[in-house]
Amino acid sequence: MERDFHALAQQYKSALLEDVIPFWENHSVDWEQGGYFTCLDRAGNVYDTDKFIWLQNRQVWMFSTFYNQIEPRRDWLAIAANGANFLAKHGRDGEGNWYFALTRDGQPLVQPYNIFSDCFAAMAFSKFALASGEDWAKEVALQAYGNVLRRKDNPKGKYTKGYPGTRPLKSLAVPMILANLTLEMDWLLPQETLDTVLAETVQEVMADFLDPVRGLMFENVMPDGSHLDCFDGRLLNPGHGIEAMWFVMDIANRRGDTATIHKAVDVVLNILNFAWDSDYGGLYYFMDAEGHPPHQLEWDQKLWWVHLETLVALSMGDRLTQRPECWEWFQKVHDYSWSHFADPEYGEWFGYLNRRGEVLLNLKGGKWKGCFHVPRALYLCWQQFEALSLQS
Amino acid sequence: MERDFHALAQQYKSALLEDVIPFWENHSVDWEQGGYFTCLDRAGNVYDTDKFIWLQNRQVWMFSTFYNQIEPRRDWLAIAANGANFLAKHGRDGEGNWYFALTRDGQPLVQPYNIFSDCFAAMAFSKFALASGEDWAKEVALQAYGNVLRRKDNPKGKYTKGYPGTRPLKSLAVPMILANLTLEMDWLLPQETLDTVLAETVQEVMADFLDPVRGLMFENVMPDGSHLDCFDGRLLNPGHGIEAMWFVMDIANRRGDTATIHKAVDVVLNILNFAWDSDYGGLYYFMDAEGHPPHQLEWDQKLWWVHLETLVALSMGDRLTQRPECWEWFQKVHDYSWSHFADPEYGEWFGYLNRRGEVLLNLKGGKWKGCFHVPRALYLCWQQFEALSLQS
Repeated sequence: MERDFHALAQQYKSALLEDVIPFWENHSVDWEQGGYFTCLDRAGNVYDTDKFIWLQNRQVWMFSTFYNQIEPRRDWLAIAANGANFLAKHGRDGEGNWYFALTRDGQPLVQPYNIFSDCFAAMAFSKFALASGEDWAKEVALQAYGNVLRRKDNPKGKYTKGYPGTRPLKSLAVPMILANLTLEMDWLLPQETLDTVLAETVQEVMADFLDPVRGLMFENVMPDGSHLDCFDGRLLNPGHGIEAMWFVMDIANRRGDTATIHKAVDVVLNILNFAWDSDYGGLYYFMDAEGHPPHQLEWDQKLWWVHLETLVALSMGDRLTQRPECWEWFQKVHDYSWSHFADPEYGEWFGYLNRRGEVLLNLKGGKWKGCFHVPRALYLCWQQFEALSLQS
Repeated sequence: MERDFHALAQQYKSALLEDVIPFWENHSVDWEQGGYFTCLDRAGNVYDTDKFIWLQNRQVWMFSTFYNQIEPRRDWLAIAANGANFLAKHGRDGEGNWYFALTRDGQPLVQPYNIFSDCFAAMAFSKFALASGEDWAKEVALQAYGNVLRRKDNPKGKYTKGYPGTRPLKSLAVPMILANLTLEMDWLLPQETLDTVLAETVQEVMADFLDPVRGLMFENVMPDGSHLDCFDGRLLNPGHGIEAMWFVMDIANRRGDTATIHKAVDVVLNILNFAWDSDYGGLYYFMDAEGHPPHQLEWDQKLWWVHLETLVALSMGDRLTQRPECWEWFQKVHDYSWSHFADPEYGEWFGYLNRRGEVLLNLKGGKWKGCFHVPRALYLCWQQFEALSLQS
């Protein structure tokens, strides 16, 4: 593969603008009842109409971001508004907490047991407020952000199944989502809040969740960063660790912290060496740090978002460090991803492959895959390669 | 394969007595701190020491049942007592509800969010009380049974994530577990309670959960037995449907209801025709009745218990009806199971295979696989073939 940044920028840009965005524009918008259909089969036909709050908010965020960052197209804003209006009306309970799922017409299906619903709401309404200029959207964003801050030390509240105190593991997801959220709300927050949260996140992730011996990110550690020898304590989620590392690179780059950028790249490379399937290619979904059987039955499957987050991390690492390992791995993961996940025949990308790389679920969207990881990663890779092509 | 019932009875009996029971005797008993290790690798080495209440209680039940029904061996009773004493001391919260998981030394790890922990406790302590003659064990059994009756209309209580009323689906698991439990507690319950519960269960399962058009068991239906077009409403769990059918056969046989036995056999055969993987053999774990992608990523995997429950259903169907399809399917599932799940090299059976029948998790026990389905099914198949060999 040629190190042709201009051609790569074009490939990712045209996949985004000519394939992926049109797929969601054409198949997912519920113009009749508001919000989006995300359960789409290979060809884009709707096979289920339930509305999952994570994916609804992520699609509002995505189309608002296209409007804000690519081009202020009126039809993109209309699609974002179609979700935002539906969600503002139906998405929250009487106390302003965000439900997990709704029926097609907006009746609550699953309780607000999950803080991430509020996170994605804050991100979505922040970017939608920026796009639309609507003050009410800004208020929805700030209210959801308040929920997250209020609930972050006990994310599942009364729905928590863990017995308090026995095994007080903390999860990588919490600092990651806080950093992500804070970046997405930057125009609504005081600079000082922004600086503090970002500095604390990088510190916590790189000191506590990064295992200094193996150089791998752990999903769950004790409050002081030590390990526990139990299923959750041994768990590695390679895609999540790699995603965390491009967040860290992005934040470190804003702060001019070159050492942390290099450290994050080291971790990405360590994870790739550990989690790449040398028999069939692709990255495993879950692993046990000690090599024991994980309890996730889907552990050996190859998931779209894992590979897309890796492409973002490697292209960003290449842009920020020019280390040759980034380019070597990028080619390998790019080839695997485009030859296994992309579906030139019907558009968009498959989400779930088995270990051998064969399609496991013949869909383009479901309960967890919506209009988010594919377009976000295509956009970010395009941006990295555009910057690289201007550098060279 | 020869229709030699004597040889089959011998095969299942010797696998149970000479392979499977010794495997659990040798590797799983925590003589030091009480209870059992269930996370055992291929060779039986312990790789995790957490104690999951379902599996702890099931092993108490299993060794008590060996003692009660095979032979009153003192070492089997000692193994049952080693679990029962540990569980009586550590298994329940202050209100007598059964936790979901404990640490090795008995500290609570996961709250009593699940009614099935109480079910398995009632079954375990009923059979342990019968084996040991201990009155305290009888009391533990009756108290757990009381929890189940109290919680059965709202099995997850405050941990329920479903929003009340929007989609009031009922689950096949509830009548099944109630029937199972009632049978296991028969010596402690009035005959009238027994008769009523069993008659109601068979009625509810065969009228509401059985789809009269397709002849398949659905996992979740509306209270009147109608279907809902949503992920949960379209869900089929072939192994669970087949397990339900041998329960129904067993109950119908006690009640001399030949028509229901034949109907249950019909359903087993329908499920087998629907869920057998014609490419690689074996039964799928989850399916969508409409052929849409299920949201269970493990849907195409081949699980030990699915196949063992099927062997029980087919051997029981053969014994009770002598229908040739039972024998035809029995041979097919027997061959698949013994050639894929059994592990003559290290003993016991693998639990989790991928769609192609290759080992997915290299273990003999974990969070969900313990000393239960393999020995129970080997015992029940042995009994069916012994009865058949006496009939012929």
